[in-house]
Amino acid sequence: MSPELSPSGPGNPPPLVLHPDRLFPTDPSVRSLARSLYELVAEAPIVSPHGHVDPAMLLADEPFADPAALFVTPDHYVTRLLHAHGIGLEQLGLRRRSGDGPSGDGPSPNGTDGPVADPRSIWRLLCEHWSAFAATPSRFWLESELAGLIGIDVRPSAATADTLYDRVAEQLATPQFRPQALFRRFGIQVMATTDDPSSDLSAHEKLAGTDLGGRVVPTFRADAYLDPADPGWAGRVAKLAVAADMPTDTYAGLLAALRARRAYFAAHGATATDTGVLDAGTEPLSDAAAERLHAEARSGPIPAADGAAYRRNMLYQQGLASAEDGLVMALHPGVYRNHHQPTGAAFGPDTGHDIPVTAEFTRALAPLLNRVGDSANFRMVVFTTDETVFSRELAPLAGFYPGVYVGAPWWFLDTADAIARFRSAVTDTVGFGKTSGFVDDTRAFCSIPARHDMSRRVDAGQLARLVLEHRLDRDEAADIMQDLSGPLPRRVFRLD
Amino acid sequence: MSPELSPSGPGNPPPLVLHPDRLFPTDPSVRSLARSLYELVAEAPIVSPHGHVDPAMLLADEPFADPAALFVTPDHYVTRLLHAHGIGLEQLGLRRRSGDGPSGDGPSPNGTDGPVADPRSIWRLLCEHWSAFAATPSRFWLESELAGLIGIDVRPSAATADTLYDRVAEQLATPQFRPQALFRRFGIQVMATTDDPSSDLSAHEKLAGTDLGGRVVPTFRADAYLDPADPGWAGRVAKLAVAADMPTDTYAGLLAALRARRAYFAAHGATATDTGVLDAGTEPLSDAAAERLHAEARSGPIPAADGAAYRRNMLYQQGLASAEDGLVMALHPGVYRNHHQPTGAAFGPDTGHDIPVTAEFTRALAPLLNRVGDSANFRMVVFTTDETVFSRELAPLAGFYPGVYVGAPWWFLDTADAIARFRSAVTDTVGFGKTSGFVDDTRAFCSIPARHDMSRRVDAGQLARLVLEHRLDRDEAADIMQDLSGPLPRRVFRLD
Amino acid sequence: MSPELSPSGPGNPPPLVLHPDRLFPTDPSVRSLARSLYELVAEAPIVSPHGHVDPAMLLADEPFADPAALFVTPDHYVTRLLHAHGIGLEQLGLRRRSGDGPSGDGPSPNGTDGPVADPRSIWRLLCEHWSAFAATPSRFWLESELAGLIGIDVRPSAATADTLYDRVAEQLATPQFRPQALFRRFGIQVMATTDDPSSDLSAHEKLAGTDLGGRVVPTFRADAYLDPADPGWAGRVAKLAVAADMPTDTYAGLLAALRARRAYFAAHGATATDTGVLDAGTEPLSDAAAERLHAEARSGPIPAADGAAYRRNMLYQQGLASAEDGLVMALHPGVYRNHHQPTGAAFGPDTGHDIPVTAEFTRALAPLLNRVGDSANFRMVVFTTDETVFSRELAPLAGFYPGVYVGAPWWFLDTADAIARFRSAVTDTVGFGKTSGFVDDTRAFCSIPARHDMSRRVDAGQLARLVLEHRLDRDEAADIMQDLSGPLPRRVFRLD
Repeated sequence: MSPELSPSGPGNPPPLVLHPDRLFPTDPSVRSLARSLYELVAEAPIVSPHGHVDPAMLLADEPFADPAALFVTPDHYVTRLLHAHGIGLEQLGLRRRSGDGPSGDGPSPNGTDGPVADPRSIWRLLCEHWSAFAATPSRFWLESELAGLIGIDVRPSAATADTLYDRVAEQLATPQFRPQALFRRFGIQVMATTDDPSSDLSAHEKLAGTDLGGRVVPTFRADAYLDPADPGWAGRVAKLAVAADMPTDTYAGLLAALRARRAYFAAHGATATDTGVLDAGTEPLSDAAAERLHAEARSGPIPAADGAAYRRNMLYQQGLASAEDGLVMALHPGVYRNHHQPTGAAFGPDTGHDIPVTAEFTRALAPLLNRVGDSANFRMVVFTTDETVFSRELAPLAGFYPGVYVGAPWWFLDTADAIARFRSAVTDTVGFGKTSGFVDDTRAFCSIPARHDMSRRVDAGQLARLVLEHRLDRDEAADIMQDLSGPLPRRVFRLD
Repeated sequence: MSPELSPSGPGNPPPLVLHPDRLFPTDPSVRSLARSLYELVAEAPIVSPHGHVDPAMLLADEPFADPAALFVTPDHYVTRLLHAHGIGLEQLGLRRRSGDGPSGDGPSPNGTDGPVADPRSIWRLLCEHWSAFAATPSRFWLESELAGLIGIDVRPSAATADTLYDRVAEQLATPQFRPQALFRRFGIQVMATTDDPSSDLSAHEKLAGTDLGGRVVPTFRADAYLDPADPGWAGRVAKLAVAADMPTDTYAGLLAALRARRAYFAAHGATATDTGVLDAGTEPLSDAAAERLHAEARSGPIPAADGAAYRRNMLYQQGLASAEDGLVMALHPGVYRNHHQPTGAAFGPDTGHDIPVTAEFTRALAPLLNRVGDSANFRMVVFTTDETVFSRELAPLAGFYPGVYVGAPWWFLDTADAIARFRSAVTDTVGFGKTSGFVDDTRAFCSIPARHDMSRRVDAGQLARLVLEHRLDRDEAADIMQDLSGPLPRRVFRLD
Repeated sequence: MSPELSPSGPGNPPPLVLHPDRLFPTDPSVRSLARSLYELVAEAPIVSPHGHVDPAMLLADEPFADPAALFVTPDHYVTRLLHAHGIGLEQLGLRRRSGDGPSGDGPSPNGTDGPVADPRSIWRLLCEHWSAFAATPSRFWLESELAGLIGIDVRPSAATADTLYDRVAEQLATPQFRPQALFRRFGIQVMATTDDPSSDLSAHEKLAGTDLGGRVVPTFRADAYLDPADPGWAGRVAKLAVAADMPTDTYAGLLAALRARRAYFAAHGATATDTGVLDAGTEPLSDAAAERLHAEARSGPIPAADGAAYRRNMLYQQGLASAEDGLVMALHPGVYRNHHQPTGAAFGPDTGHDIPVTAEFTRALAPLLNRVGDSANFRMVVFTTDETVFSRELAPLAGFYPGVYVGAPWWFLDTADAIARFRSAVTDTVGFGKTSGFVDDTRAFCSIPARHDMSRRVDAGQLARLVLEHRLDRDEAADIMQDLSGPLPRRVFRLD
């Protein structure tokens, strides 16, 4: 093979190298300017207004168990693609719920069936299938973590798997790999978690007294209480009554309890709510109709259509609440959850088979936006996994309503090419100032810097292109670059 | 900051400069060829087969009142983005309709409520929010107008707002800024306006006798008469009877009256009709069913579904009429009008909150195209604000039916990146010859040259790329470039 | 005109030249690496796992009749665009079915109405309209065939049409232009045809004994038997009983007969099935419900909705059969067939007016994938003509289910820009290994090498870009390039 097609450095096994120009456009003039723009923010503090890091993990500050437990098992981006290549989820360390009786809601108290995979063999599966991740964002993040954070300098493969396992494990045992040390090292200025309204936020309270070099704030996510056709709804609503110390046996009671919990969250630093629903419908119900559905759902299963009607009204009501208390409403509809039911039953939710469907916002949001779309307190950040809505619906909505912002591309769209497509699709209609700034949305704590770095690099490339196509002046691009990296998401999510 | 990130020229305030290579791709070889292709048409006359300039404004030929009245208040592209950044429409000079009784259809005869914003303060809001427009097409157009037309050489900002206001106002008072002088200076060869079927076209008649260096032709837009569930339909249909001097109390009568008005328009130079509907449905009704709905709608409100059925039949009937009289049928469905009803009620239509929805053409147009899709006289130019249909539906339809052309991207898609995406999506299936040529679709008279210039620049870049990827020969690209700039739209819209 | 805008070589008429760098990106560094990657596979054998070449044509091995019969008349890509420019299909050699009675199903035994166009005049129409194909994939393929295969060196035009006709005709008469000689010259390693389940596959049997330098395998396409609301279904099902030597008068019988024919196909080398349906629905029916619909449809017309329900169940059943016998299930829903009924009635199907509609897979495939999506034998390759599903549905499905692969872009999307968009949309989520490799899907035998060449060139450009953006290492890109060109499609379609 010609030298042009050899690995990027000499030696065998091939090296793992983080090139300083990665993700920048190839055109030399664009690349040079992209580099200058990137350098303005390369070391800027991280603002993470939405994600799924567990605050208890941060508080406990215990070492990560092993390389598989850090990089493979809990990351459904990684496990799903390995599964797609024929590897069973058990082999990747996921625990099979025992029991197959009708009460399959939640992990069994008896623990798991059968043995759990050995961490070293899980890690080896990742390394053996390294080529399956070629050019995916997971590959970018993993490389950034392995090379940038841990200092690995050879490419994962069957041949290097065991050596790498030992080197990673050795690092994880050191104090600087404890979660709090990493939080400081990552330069996180503020990080929002995602929390159930019934949470007492005690971990957040304790973290507030911990010197992390930045703060951790909760986010109010009420999904579990919105759809009464969802199994377990009645039980969850009953439990919320305990947390809120208010009755939830009526619709009015549930609304009041949620309002009380929103206030509790706000008092603990929350500035936003988060909602993931199948569709963005916000058609309101009369109080009487909502009360009737609430009562029916408490006494037994109700039809899915009734559940959806109640849920859409609840989304409307949560929007009204946002207009009152000013919590920013993050919304991300359009994902069919737990597509493969056997996997969901065996391993639980968030195991890699949530699949997007077509999204619709123009009609769906009309009731809510007609009511509060231009009220001063109301703010909504809309995310999607259906990129067709960027130019068709979200940019036009955010380009008129002061209360609407276009959320950054995430999940299935959280990569270099998709971020570039997003900018191209929305900038024409709304510029930069009505977008959310980057949101990492991750459960993988160690990937946070890499994810923000990817976004900064792609934005730098986009801005450089706009400058060199003479659509933007250099100083303006520099201002936008810096705004996107922190001030903008802080303003949008009211984190200042 | 490094010099690489300074404004494009020295001095404070930053300069406003139109770079000769703006919008060309950054790759040096592509840019060089794009420049050569662009130069072929840079000074070519403007063919504007669809737009919203008021012929009475041209005829009156009065000076524009002030910078705000020219560049801000009437341009919903500009006002919507300022509104999205929290500025009320009153502050931008829009007039609030007085009265909130049930008869809110149209501006009140009593004028407006309260004081109207001062032009200088409106202008200042634009300048203060100049960065909100960064990289948007409005920015490109405004810069082209301010620098290219008026000679402004500093960037708008809070600091420069007042000086710029005075300089712009001074220019607007000169004879060369009268509408007719601008028409000549713009090199407009032919411009189509958009007109109600009841118009007597007297402004067009008078303009025909005026030396403008080009001609102004009307376009027949019958939207107001198509949907009987739309408030005010019966009144408008009754008024049309007066204009047509024919009874419209029956469906057959309305069809005949529209046919008569089409002939009247054609006799006054019209070569096209224009229709904006919520969906592209063309399902015909029996005459009896259409008569029944017509009669019901004259005597009171009818359900929306009945209105839609009548409207789809009317679209079908207008298509048949096009196949008879040869008026080219421009169609642009898929926009949800007046999304924010409070704004619509307060300020009227076309105030920046029409929001696209998903479009569908394959099934919707089947009835009409099965009837007249290959008849020699029939011609339809289909526009969309849902870009997903370009490769999926419009290019395939235009790639078979001789009577179907793909309309240029417009509204929400009328910018550099979207035009490039459009070319990429449709060229593969239909080449260049079954597209419409550029259509500016604008109410902002002074932006017409800038809009055509943007399109020519982007097309030059696309063609240059095709040549340098060896998908097209140089002389072919030159031929296509010249065809797109004038001969093609003249042929498509039968303007020769 | 400046020399920069002259044709690519001297002389009059303009030359026809195949540039060695065609379709590579213009950036010099990307182009150079793309060239190196392309060279790895430029001469690699062709793997064609899905297409529409007639095995009887190959077996007969007769010379092609004339240039029009080879390049124009049977290629609906070419005829549709000429038709779109106003040329009647008769003028292009399509034969009008005689008779217009109700029994219009299939060509009349009496042959055709009226005279058939003269081959030379058909050819002339193509040459005269050469510019209509500018930058289309048909143009790329035709140029590759004319210049690369036949040695034509001047551009087709009205002026050159007759000379070119003679030169092409002369070549077609030589032994090296017989189908089998071309098969060897093309370096086809394996080519799958598309065959009706009732076929005895005798042509395949005989071809298996012919030295072609590669093999020809059948593909089981049961579309004609799936939808009982489709005219002629009962007759076709009855005929299948003869071929299968099993009764098909019940639903159970039809399923058994199809299973038997699948086994027959597999025994004759088939490794895959192919299904083109309006939607991807796989909702199963109870046996009783399916039997009832089967019986009703045998005795007369049934409603379209009933036909669709039966068809979706049949798709489900064929999926179960694939999980049993391991035949790879190619699926391509979402095309509205025979959009222009007058053309369909006059000239039959596949005459250029099949038009895509919106596709949906997430919900549609859920029943089937829940049943067999992770079973070891099951494999499905999903194709689309609606590119919005690439990032939204297909990549996410293939990124979890081991049995799902994303089919290469084809039809309306089978060109340079669309292939690049496809890679950009799916690589982020599934890398390269869960895509199908290129599928030419063609009826135009001589275009097969050009189609694979286009795909290889575009993939080389994409991989080069990923390398130079430091998202992929050079040796990895080389491995992927070689895998895509043959090993991957052989694995995916179980052709090894």
